This record gives sequence, C-alpha cells and structure tokens, in this order.
Amino acid sequence: LREGQLIFTYLHLAADEGLTRRLMETGVTAIGYETIQLADGTLPLLVPMSEVAGRMSVQVGAQYLEKRHGGRGVLLSGLAGVPPAEVVIIGGGVVGQGAAMVAVGLGASVTIIDINIARLRYIEEIMRGRVITVMSNLDNIERSARYADLIIGAVLIPGGKAPMLIGRKTVEKMKPGSVIVDVAVDQGGCIETSRPTTHSRPTFAYRDVVHYCVGNMPAAVPRTSTLALTNETLPYVLELAGLGFEKAVRKNKALAMGVNVHKGKIVHPNVAKAFDLPCGKLV
Amino acid sequence: LREGQLIFTYLHLAADEGLTRRLMETGVTAIGYETIQLADGTLPLLVPMSEVAGRMSVQVGAQYLEKRHGGRGVLLSGLAGVPPAEVVIIGGGVVGQGAAMVAVGLGASVTIIDINIARLRYIEEIMRGRVITVMSNLDNIERSARYADLIIGAVLIPGGKAPMLIGRKTVEKMKPGSVIVDVAVDQGGCIETSRPTTHSRPTFAYRDVVHYCVGNMPAAVPRTSTLALTNETLPYVLELAGLGFEKAVRKNKALAMGVNVHKGKIVHPNVAKAFDLPCGKLV
Amino acid sequence: LREGQLIFTYLHLAADEGLTRRLMETGVTAIGYETIQLADGTLPLLVPMSEVAGRMSVQVGAQYLEKRHGGRGVLLSGLAGVPPAEVVIIGGGVVGQGAAMVAVGLGASVTIIDINIARLRYIEEIMRGRVITVMSNLDNIERSARYADLIIGAVLIPGGKAPMLIGRKTVEKMKPGSVIVDVAVDQGGCIETSRPTTHSRPTFAYRDVVHYCVGNMPAAVPRTSTLALTNETLPYVLELAGLGFEKAVRKNKALAMGVNVHKGKIVHPNVAKAFDLPCGKLV
Amino acid sequence: LREGQLIFTYLHLAADEGLTRRLMETGVTAIGYETIQLADGTLPLLVPMSEVAGRMSVQVGAQYLEKRHGGRGVLLSGLAGVPPAEVVIIGGGVVGQGAAMVAVGLGASVTIIDINIARLRYIEEIMRGRVITVMSNLDNIERSARYADLIIGAVLIPGGKAPMLIGRKTVEKMKPGSVIVDVAVDQGGCIETSRPTTHSRPTFAYRDVVHYCVGNMPAAVPRTSTLALTNETLPYVLELAGLGFEKAVRKNKALAMGVNVHKGKIVHPNVAKAFDLPCGKLV
Amino acid sequence: LREGQLIFTYLHLAADEGLTRRLMETGVTAIGYETIQLADGTLPLLVPMSEVAGRMSVQVGAQYLEKRHGGRGVLLSGLAGVPPAEVVIIGGGVVGQGAAMVAVGLGASVTIIDINIARLRYIEEIMRGRVITVMSNLDNIERSARYADLIIGAVLIPGGKAPMLIGRKTVEKMKPGSVIVDVAVDQGGCIETSRPTTHSRPTFAYRDVVHYCVGNMPAAVPRTSTLALTNETLPYVLELAGLGFEKAVRKNKALAMGVNVHKGKIVHPNVAKAFDLPCGKLV
Amino acid sequence: LREGQLIFTYLHLAADEGLTRRLMETGVTAIGYETIQLADGTLPLLVPMSEVAGRMSVQVGAQYLEKRHGGRGVLLSGLAGVPPAEVVIIGGGVVGQGAAMVAVGLGASVTIIDINIARLRYIEEIMRGRVITVMSNLDNIERSARYADLIIGAVLIPGGKAPMLIGRKTVEKMKPGSVIVDVAVDQGGCIETSRPTTHSRPTFAYRDVVHYCVGNMPAAVPRTSTLALTNETLPYVLELAGLGFEKAVRKNKALAMGVNVHKGKIVHPNVAKAFDLPCGKLV
Repeated sequence: LREGQLIFTYLHLAADEGLTRRLMETGVTAIGYETIQLADGTLPLLVPMSEVAGRMSVQVGAQYLEKRHGGRGVLLSGLAGVPPAEVVIIGGGVVGQGAAMVAVGLGASVTIIDINIARLRYIEEIMRGRVITVMSNLDNIERSARYADLIIGAVLIPGGKAPMLIGRKTVEKMKPGSVIVDVAVDQGGCIETSRPTTHSRPTFAYRDVVHYCVGNMPAAVPRTSTLALTNETLPYVLELAGLGFEKAVRKNKALAMGVNVHKGKIVHPNVAKAFDLPCGKLV
Repeated sequence: LREGQLIFTYLHLAADEGLTRRLMETGVTAIGYETIQLADGTLPLLVPMSEVAGRMSVQVGAQYLEKRHGGRGVLLSGLAGVPPAEVVIIGGGVVGQGAAMVAVGLGASVTIIDINIARLRYIEEIMRGRVITVMSNLDNIERSARYADLIIGAVLIPGGKAPMLIGRKTVEKMKPGSVIVDVAVDQGGCIETSRPTTHSRPTFAYRDVVHYCVGNMPAAVPRTSTLALTNETLPYVLELAGLGFEKAVRKNKALAMGVNVHKGKIVHPNVAKAFDLPCGKLV
Repeated sequence: LREGQLIFTYLHLAADEGLTRRLMETGVTAIGYETIQLADGTLPLLVPMSEVAGRMSVQVGAQYLEKRHGGRGVLLSGLAGVPPAEVVIIGGGVVGQGAAMVAVGLGASVTIIDINIARLRYIEEIMRGRVITVMSNLDNIERSARYADLIIGAVLIPGGKAPMLIGRKTVEKMKPGSVIVDVAVDQGGCIETSRPTTHSRPTFAYRDVVHYCVGNMPAAVPRTSTLALTNETLPYVLELAGLGFEKAVRKNKALAMGVNVHKGKIVHPNVAKAFDLPCGKLV
Repeated sequence: LREGQLIFTYLHLAADEGLTRRLMETGVTAIGYETIQLADGTLPLLVPMSEVAGRMSVQVGAQYLEKRHGGRGVLLSGLAGVPPAEVVIIGGGVVGQGAAMVAVGLGASVTIIDINIARLRYIEEIMRGRVITVMSNLDNIERSARYADLIIGAVLIPGGKAPMLIGRKTVEKMKPGSVIVDVAVDQGGCIETSRPTTHSRPTFAYRDVVHYCVGNMPAAVPRTSTLALTNETLPYVLELAGLGFEKAVRKNKALAMGVNVHKGKIVHPNVAKAFDLPCGKLV
Repeated sequence: LREGQLIFTYLHLAADEGLTRRLMETGVTAIGYETIQLADGTLPLLVPMSEVAGRMSVQVGAQYLEKRHGGRGVLLSGLAGVPPAEVVIIGGGVVGQGAAMVAVGLGASVTIIDINIARLRYIEEIMRGRVITVMSNLDNIERSARYADLIIGAVLIPGGKAPMLIGRKTVEKMKPGSVIVDVAVDQGGCIETSRPTTHSRPTFAYRDVVHYCVGNMPAAVPRTSTLALTNETLPYVLELAGLGFEKAVRKNKALAMGVNVHKGKIVHPNVAKAFDLPCGKLV
Repeated sequence: LREGQLIFTYLHLAADEGLTRRLMETGVTAIGYETIQLADGTLPLLVPMSEVAGRMSVQVGAQYLEKRHGGRGVLLSGLAGVPPAEVVIIGGGVVGQGAAMVAVGLGASVTIIDINIARLRYIEEIMRGRVITVMSNLDNIERSARYADLIIGAVLIPGGKAPMLIGRKTVEKMKPGSVIVDVAVDQGGCIETSRPTTHSRPTFAYRDVVHYCVGNMPAAVPRTSTLALTNETLPYVLELAGLGFEKAVRKNKALAMGVNVHKGKIVHPNVAKAFDLPCGKLV
C-alpha cells in the first residue's frame, strides 16, 4: 500500500483503530462498501448479503431440524396427512422476506412478525394466503415461539444493534429440538440466548433448543455471494475507472459517502467519532 | 299422471310408502335421479349438488361468524397483522374439496381431515401449501376442533348414514362464537349436536357454538343448482327421447339403475326392500 | 372528563357541534383517529377499516345473492359447466383491491373499474389474468352494470363526499335479483339509489336490485376490526405514554395532525371552520 | 422396398388403395403410427401431434387477429384498462386443454366448452379461476360465438369425422375481424364454414371472419414435433430391434394393432374393409 | 388549420422542420403526446405503446420461429418430454416486463437481462421462479445469445438513442433459425444487425437469424392500442375542454410540457434547439 | 417371542435366512410392511418413505452445495441478477415428484427426466412452467449432468434393483463441487459411482463431485416419518385387532400379501424362493 492507491472493499474501520491509523499513514484512499449509502438511507452493498442470508437461513434451519443434529426430527414440508413444520420469522425486511419465500417454497407453515404494518401489507399482497402476518408485540412473539419448530431472527437495524426481541424465558418455553437461526447475530442478535458461532462449529444447544448463529452466513455460498456483490460494486468500479476518483465522488454522492480515508485524513464522520479524530472534508 | 307416462326427477321413494304405492297404481314409469348409478358406483346426479353445497358451506360459515349472528366476529381472511380464521374441514370428498377451494380463496387457514391418504395426497398436490392435510383420528379431530373458528362437516357416505365424527364433548370444548356447518345433516350429520334446520331458520346455538344445518343447501342458489343439474340430466333425457324408454335403458345401464317403478311394479331392489314388496325385472 | 385528561379515539367533531363545545369546556385534550395524517396525505387509522370493509363486501354480496334474500340465486364460484357470477368493482383503492382479492378467491369473474391507470396497472400485475381492469367512464360503467350479478361500490375520497358513479337509470337496467354493496354509503354512496341501512335491517330492494348499504361494516367482525385498529393505534399510544403529550406531538407530525381540542381550544382547522370558531396553535 | 423389410411410419392406407396394393406386392411388413392403439383405445402416436396443434392454435390465432391479416386488431392479453380478448375453445380434450393453457398464459379471457362434465371438472380444478367452463349445447355455443374474438375448433373424434358444432348462421353472427382456427379440419372440421388450407396460403375470410384451417399444423414447428414424436416411437423401435418383429408384436398388443400389411396380406381390419380385401391374421 | 385552433396528437417536430415551420405560420397551438411529461420524468402517453409492443413482441417471435418463416421450427412452450424454447429479453423496463409476462405465459424458459438490480429484484418478486434474472454485461449477454431461440431487444431510453448491446459478432454466433425482435428499432435499435422494416415486409435474415424490426408495432393491433392511448389522453382532453387552454396548462405541469408551438412560437426547448430557433415562454 | 403372537413391522426376510428360520421356529405370525401390496401392485407402506426421501433429498443437496462441505458454494435459489442453481432429477415417480416440488419451491431451475411420457405430462400439468420435462435417454442424461449443480437419483423399481443411469464417465464430466444425492442407493443406486454411506458419515467425494448416499434417509426426520408411516399402518392394525387375524387376512387381500410366516411355515413365495423352502398356503 502506498500513497495515491485506491482501496475499495469492506473496511469496518470504526471497529479497528489500528487499521484506521495504518491507512491514514499510508496515504491511500480507502472506500468502504459498508458506508456507501443512497439518498434514501439504504446501504446498497449490504442488501445482497442480507438476501443471501435470509434465503439460506431456512435451508440451514431445515437441516438442523434433523434428529442427528439435535433437532426435533421433522421435515419442513410435512406430507399428505402429516402437517408441515411451523416457521416463525421475526422481522419482515430483506432478510425476513427472503426467508419467507424459501419457507413457503419448502411447504412450511409460515408466520412473519413485524412492527411495520405497511411492510406486512406488501408481504401479504405478494404471498397472499401463504404467509400469516402478525403484529410484533411481546404477547404475539411469545405465543408464536411456543409453537414454532424453527425461528428465524431477522431483525437488523442498518448500522445499529439489533433489538433483543426473544428473551431467555421465552426460549425456555420452546419445544425441545426446535431450532433458532439468528441472522442478526453479527449485530448482537435479536434473541437473548444467541452467541456468535462459526462455520466450523455452527451450532450449540440451550435447553434443547438448537441455536445456529454463524456471523457471516453468505461465506458458505461464496460463488453466489460474490456474483451478487460484484453486480452491485461493478458500476462503482467502472465509474471510478472511467472518471477518476475526483470526478466520480463529485458526481456520485452515494460513492462519496463510502470514502473513509483520503490523503491521510479521516473523511467519514462515524469513523472520526469512533476514535475522536478530526474529520476532514472530501473535496 | 296416467299409464305410460314417464317421470324423471328426484323420487326418494324408500322414504315414502304412500308415494310409492300411488306411483304403482297409476302405471307410470318413474326414474329417480338419486338412483342413477355408474358402473363404478358413483351417483352422477348427486355430485353437482355436493359441489354446490361444499362451495356454499364456507360462504355461509363466513356469514355466521359475524357478531350479529352470534359468531365470534372474525373475518375469514384476516388482514395484514391480523391472522386469518381457522377453517377445519372434516372430509376430503367432493363436498370437502369444494369447501377447501373456497376457504383457501377467501384467505383462511385451512385444515382438511380425512381417513383416505390417497385423497389427501391429491388435495395436497393441487393446493400445495395452501391446505394442511391431517389424518382422521379422534385425537386429531379433537385438537383441530379446539382451535377452529369454523368447522365444515363434509363426510357423506353415498346412500348411507354419515358417521358421527365430532361428539358433544368436543363441541363443548370449541371456542365461543365458533361456527359449525354440517353439510351431512340430511344423512344424520357427522356432528353429534347437529339437528336439521331450514332456510327460514337456518341456525341454532349449542353452548355458544352456532350450528348451521340446513338440509337442502343448494336450494338457496337455484339458478346455479338447476343449471348444474340440467347439465347432468340432459344427456339422459335426450337418450330417452331419442331412443324411447325400452332401448334407452337397455343401452345405458346407469339409466336402467335409475328406474324405480315400471308398469305398476317396483323394479329397484332398495325400494322393494323398504316396503317388503316384490321386485320386478326391468326388461 | 376533566382538565388535563387525554382522549384518543374516533371523534368526528366536524359533524357534532355539541360534542365539540363540551370537549372545549372540559379542558381535555382530544385526539381524533380520523384526523391523524401522514406526510403523504394518507389517513393510517382509516386504512384498516377500509381493508375490512372491502374484504367483507364480497362475502356479504355472496350471501344476498341467495334466493331467500331476494337475490338471483347464483353461487359466486359457479362450478364445472356453470359459469361463475360476474362481480363488478367500482374503484381500485384499498376497498376495491380487498374486494377483488376475495372475489377472485371465491372463483367469480371479476371486473375492476378505476380512473387511475397506474392503479389498474398494479392490480393487473399482482392478480394477472384473474381480474379484468377497465377504464372508468360512463359507457364502461353502464355496460358492466348490465351484466353484473354483484356490484361493489368502492369509491371513497378520503374526507370527502363519494362521487355518484352509477345513476338510477343504470340501476334500473340491472338484472333482477342482482346485488349492490355500496361500501361508500357513509360518505353519501357512489350509487344513486343507495341509502344508509343498519346491521339489523341491512338491505332493501330497488326495482328487484338488492341494496346492502350498512354504514359501519367492520362492526360485524369486531374481533378482527379491533385487532387491526389496535395494531395501528398502539404505536401512537406508546409514544404518548412514553414521551408525554408535548414531546410526542412535537416529534410525530402525524399525531399532531390528530389533535382536535387542546386546553379548551380547537386546534384543527377543519373543525374550527365547521363551526366558525377560532383555530388555536398546538404548540 | 423388398420382402422382409419393415416400414414403421404414418401410413394412412385406408385413404390410398394404390399404396396399399403396392405394399402388398412388395412383401414388406408395414406398421402405421396412426393405428397403434393402447388397451383403453387411445392412439399414443397421435397424442403429441394434438398437443402441438392445440398449443399452436392460440399463437396462430393471436397473429391473425392483427389488422394486416384481416383481424380485429386486438391484442389477446389486453393491458391495464383495456380488457383482454375473448377466446372460446370448443372441446376440452388434448387439443383444447393445450389451447386453454396457452390462451390463459397469454392473458386472454378463456371459455372452454365440452359435453363431458368430468373433463370440465378436471380442467376447472387445475386452472381454477382462469378458465370458464361451459356445457356444450347449441345455445351456449351460439352465445359464446357472438362475443368471441377467437374461436378454436378443438373437437376431434379419434379415427372419426369431427361433429359440426358451429353452423354457417352462427359464423355469420360473429364479430367482423374475429378469427376461427379449426384444428379439426383434417377430419372434416367442426365448423361449417371451414375448408382445408395450406401453410403457404393458410387463411381465407368468410363474411369478415378469418379462417385458419391448415391441416397439418405441427409441420410448422418440425423440430418440436419430431422430438415429441420420437419420444413416443422410440420405445417401439427399440422393442422391434431388440426382440425381432415376431416376439415384439406378440408381447406388445398396442404395437400389434399397428401392423397394417404383413407377408403380402392386409392384417388390419379397417384397411381390409376400406378396399373390400380379405383380412389376414397377424400370427 | 387556422389561428387559435388546438392540435393534440403525436407531433415529433424535432424530426421535421417543414412541419414545425408550417405550424408556426398557421398560429395553431400544438401539443405533442410524446412530450407530455410527469414530474418524475416519465412520458405517460408513451407507456401504453411500450406495453403493447412488449406483449406483442413475444407473440410475433413465436410466429417467426415457425419453419415456413425461416425460423428454427420450435414451439415456444415445448411439451411433455420436449424442453420449451429459450427466450432472452434484453431490458427489464415496461417493454421487457410485458414481454416476460407473455413469454412465461406461453411456457417458455425466460431470461431477463438488465443493469438495474432494483428492477430485476421487483421482477423476481412478482414472477418468482418463472424468470431467470441476469446482470447485464457483455459476457452474460453473449452467453445468453448463444443459447437463445428468441431474443427480444427491449432497451429503450426515453427520448434518446437505444444503446447497442448485441454486436454483429454475437449475432453471428446465434443458432440458425433463431429470431430477434428489436422493439427499440425506432430509436436505432439495441442490436447491431437491426434495420427498420415495415408491417408489409416485417422481417429479413442476417446469417440465418430472422430479424423482426417493425418500427410501429402497436399499429398491428389498432383497436387495443387506440383504447389504451385514449385512456391516457382523455383526462387531458377533458381538462383542456373544461378549463380552457390557459388555465389547463397552468394547472397541469405535465400538459404544459407537451406544448410545442403556441401563438406562432416554439415553446418547447428541444424543438427550438433542433432547428436553432428561439424558444418562447408558454405563459 | 412365542407361538400365537403376531409381529407387524418391516421384516425384509429374503435378505436374512437366520431371522427367517428363527421366526419359523417360534411359531409366531409375521407380517412384513414391505410385502403388503394393493391389487394394482403398489406397496402402500413404502410410499410415505419415498415421499419423505424425495422431499428431503433437495434440502440435503442444498446443504452439501455449501463450500465447507466441498460443494460449489452456490445458493439453490440464486437472487436477483444471479441465476439459480440447476437441479436435475432422474426419475419422475414419487421420489422425483417430491424432489421437484421442493426444488421448485426453493427457486431452483429444475429439470426432470423420465422414460414415461404420461408421467411427465402429469408433472408438466401440475407444475406448469416451473419444471422442464425431458425424455430419458443417454444423450439427454449426459447433457443434463454436465450443467447440473445438483443431481437427484430418484429411479427406484419396487422390489427390484435400480437401473444404472449415470455412468462413471458422465460423473467425471460434472462440474467440480456439484452434488449427487442418490436416493436409490438402498437398491444399488442409479449412479455408477454411488456407494452406501451413513447418517454419521453421509458423503464422500469422487473427482470433486460430492456424493450423498445415505440408505435410510427418512431416519433423519423420525417424527415426520413415524407419523406418516403410522397413518398408513394404523388401518391394518385396527383391522387385525377388530376382526382377529383369520378374518382380517381373508377380508383384506393386501394385508394377506403381507404375511410372511404363519404357524411355522413360510407363506410368502418370494421368501420361500429365497431360501428354497416350501411355501405354505395362508388359509
């Protein structure tokens, strides 16, 4: 790394002071995927990872419901004369909608819980009759948890800590062998009993409830994840290559938001604030 | 009525000795819709009435779930954030499949219970993911009854008495304001607390459970019922008109099964047996 | 009621001067569900009632098509060999879309008429091939009315009088026994022959056309309606309870729009205008 | 061609005495695709051609509805605010079901007319809500013809003459620019005004109604047709090659039914009858 | 034409100086459908024509895949045992979505390529599992072109020249008998080998690839196109008739954008710029 | 075990002479689930296990496509802009149809290969447009294998050895990291490179192709499997308990076919033949 070079990747500097200072010293320009932000606040380079994680979560849950993994030994789809398993999805955003599509596709009974009625309305409209939408409150969540075979924790707040929506007491009332997949674990998880696990040891049991809490789920399907990510990043790369850095960030505000370090200075307020450093202007 | 004339309509003679003897005296030939029977045992002129009754049953149930009729005050479909009502259909034959199609269409949560796995398999195949199929046994029926908002009694045995599948005790455990529509009431009903009602006073309550037990449901939609019935009867009429009675019954065994009285004699064994009369031969 | 207390419910003050003055005298703060308004003009606490009324309208219409209620005696769904009934929905907003979903689910032939092409385009997209969308004009409406078995009047203008879209002459050309459900009757109705009815005497006939014009349809399914309404109101209640009135209305503009009376003064312009009273400022 | 050789193809000998006699003289064994027949009477090597013709018929009809071909200038699917075209399919067998699938897929309003209620019931079940099923009788056919934009004549009787279901008078009442595709034209057609046309001059007009009556429709898509046909014929070829002719026809009755000429003799009764020749026994 | 009159139709003045000057001389007020523009930049009077062209494109492509037109002789839908044809749609806007709906309805295998991920996400959501969505880049386009039976060129840039996305080299690698329908041909086409054709000679072949490049496709279905267009123009006409020109253009900005010539002056900047004329102000 | 007792379970005696002789000595009556057979040849107590295995196979395949298990690292469903994985199912019977339903539900591209056209036709009808049906022959199988991400071996012949349909050479041409699930492994497998594995070590790699060949897949979901099996066996148990053995086997031919050992004698011909023992008569 040396001055004038351009780095464009996931940085997560606010969590790593050493890396931040090192980048400042080298004089590189560092753009972080995770801070590129559209005018409406969405983080476009995080969306595809949420989509992958959501779709994968139910597939993973189906697997850990097998007996040999400690699960209840139920098949998500059921079959004629045997009711399907109950999947409860906490959160109806990108992750939750992806999870619902797969759970419905597998033939499960699916309940989706969210506090945003407009979101539930849209989900009901496009999956009419296949998903039960429920208002999020403690009572509804606890009742759902009791009958669930599989719970997907899908409440992520962009850039913030996930709210804790299922407490220890509720987990203790779940059926033995039921499974929790907490997709929000990277942000602290939305289930009290969650703690981060890894792809090599993905699960642990808390009172006979199997917990799958792998932080970086998309890493399990790198081919798909990489293609999805590249589809989103390529236009920025082309813009940088075509116009040069100066013109590109001036033209594209979303890209400008992504710049963290430039000419030895921090230029992103959150990173500056994290280490109490001065925050420079980009242009 | 006089000798040589031909009557082709619903007769139900086995239940009316006076009518039977009167028909014998007049010398008419009387063919009963209800005894026309195909080689495989099906009664083709009863099928459309079962279809109408099945489809109508859920529509009627939705209505009596309204508060002013004593129902629980729930909308079958629910809406975003409010789960749909639970409809439990006992029996997966013509009536039950019709009821399931309508209940699914209205957006309810639908469970269908039958003892015939092959039948459940077919229903699961064509309504995949929209209906939960459950094996019929006491335990499953009682559990379903407890959470049902609407139960459709749809177990009819062609020409026989309906089996009693939901006992008084089970009805007493149902939710207040839940509704039962017993389509089988004409044949004794498949729910212990059923007793026949009429279109003018269609319901009664037993322990806060609304019972709709009108015997002849298709009479409520005579235009549809008549068209459906005529579609089935017309080919027989054309055959009778085209070939004459003798040739027609010789050619068409199903039609021959329909003849009850001919030249002053009973020629259908069930009618003869009902009144201990001799049974003549048709030809 | 006494000073300092807070009322949060449907108020409809503009229609009741006595109530308005009484609230002013008591010194309570009165927030009306019906005037809470989002930045884009939508009235979020009215939407769920429209959803319920729309879905219920077709279910009610199906019932009154029964012969004993004066209807044509047709089953909405039809059956094999007997075409389904024709349902014509005037208006493609929340009410109309809900009605269309249920009518399609019941198996009817559904036509939806609106003046807003973008709205028709969306409905066509999500119900492709199940609903015929038609541009609203006199010619199209009259032609549709002639073949309709069931017309749903679903044109509501938030806070305004419904436009009269089907005139007496057109109603007179409808088929005998056809049914009109005018969901807009509370706002004057969109059909000339409508006049408000009640849940205890819900219908009347005009020239053999059955009219169902109950003003407050959701009252028939209070359990569903209450849950739906509470889902929408609870967040406001929590905000009021958590922050106190002053902070809550300052933070939440939609809630502030809902305040009608505060500290003895009218603070909502429409109410003030209705009785020619001065309109105070909320904060 | 010489003695002992085996021919396996479409023969249609009953229509060609010269060819028949020539085959007898050469001493070849000739198996006709069109007379291979299963125990239940179906002609398996004709089914795929009916499937192709049925699916193609609506696609062809859509094309001739274009103005430049004399059609009404309507798009089958319509679009938001413009109703789709009306497609009426006479006959619900293999041809009609294929046509219905495509017409529904294209977004048209589809009516299917048949005399077989069980068949209509199955079509209603698998295409629920997308197709209107109507009992076949003169009244229903004439009413449908009047509003149709496109009529598909799809009534074929295996090995027989198609019944004439739409008379000249009815065609004269059709809308100007409407289109008829008579798939049954090879068997005389089921529409009175049909007469065979060719792929090079496929249509003619009768009173402003465009008629497409090409006899061998599958020839337009030879790649698809050949693959479909080969899928059906290959098992017979393998059986002939593996077992030899004698064993193969003894084992496979359907194949035996296909043999028309063997060792200089006619061995299929219909061919023998056509030319008043003696009918030999196959084995 | 004389002073004070109002013309409201398609004008396309920027392409016709003679017509422009003539309109200026007459003193008429000329509003062009094609320059009416909503606040968000969409051109509402062009949308319905794009919808018609998109839906028609696949129907036309199906036709030219027939052997007699030089096509590969494949049926889009395939049938049991014979895979369906591969349809590749370049562009996921109004044209592309319409094409995809029809191609899916016909039973083809459908790939849709676009550079806008949000657009692909919406299409995936409403046609889940029926369409493969692919990121637009040279590699993906070329790979798709090689296996395509039918390519729909559906990339239109409102008011601009279509980008050339499939080069001559790629067309040369396509399968013999495959078909290209370039809907964008009016704007230069998005395929290098396209050149405009007419309804009377709609196709030409380039290296065995059939090209259909008719500029004004909706003209083939004038009844549908006219209804669709009138649905969009009528509200403007009513506004002009009701308010008069002055008030109407003051109230409705979209309409004002449509005015090209007023009181002898050009008032639309693009037209003025095209002929280097001064651009007047409308009011 | 002692004389007069009745055993009703899976026996598989033909594969275990010791067990057979021991049962003969004890004098018990032994009924084998696996030999109960309906008049049409189906083995009803094997069907539910095939259903479970078929549905589970795709779920298992999805899991082993993850990178950490040696798979290609693809997500079956893909996402917007990234095509889904290709699933190829060899065999369209109970196992294959179950696999197809789940694969379609997960959003994969699904090809199903079978030699039975009627079967493919039914699958096409109920999953129209979601599954590509392909005739089974060496060429089609090899071509499909080359592009497959996941192959499900689903060809089982009741009571016989599975045919070997994918040879070693074909497996060697598969993409690295692709996955094979051979459901037929219990019967020798339909893929040459298969060899039985266990739930504790379920997979092995052959040339970078992951093979999952666990013999008794339903054991992974014992709760679902047991319920499904009990649904099928209970009616037989009730019949045995209600009528006694003698009457039950006389009344129910399917049950009688299930008896293997009775009063010290073998009474099922296949078992007798396996060990060259005399075969007694049941009654």
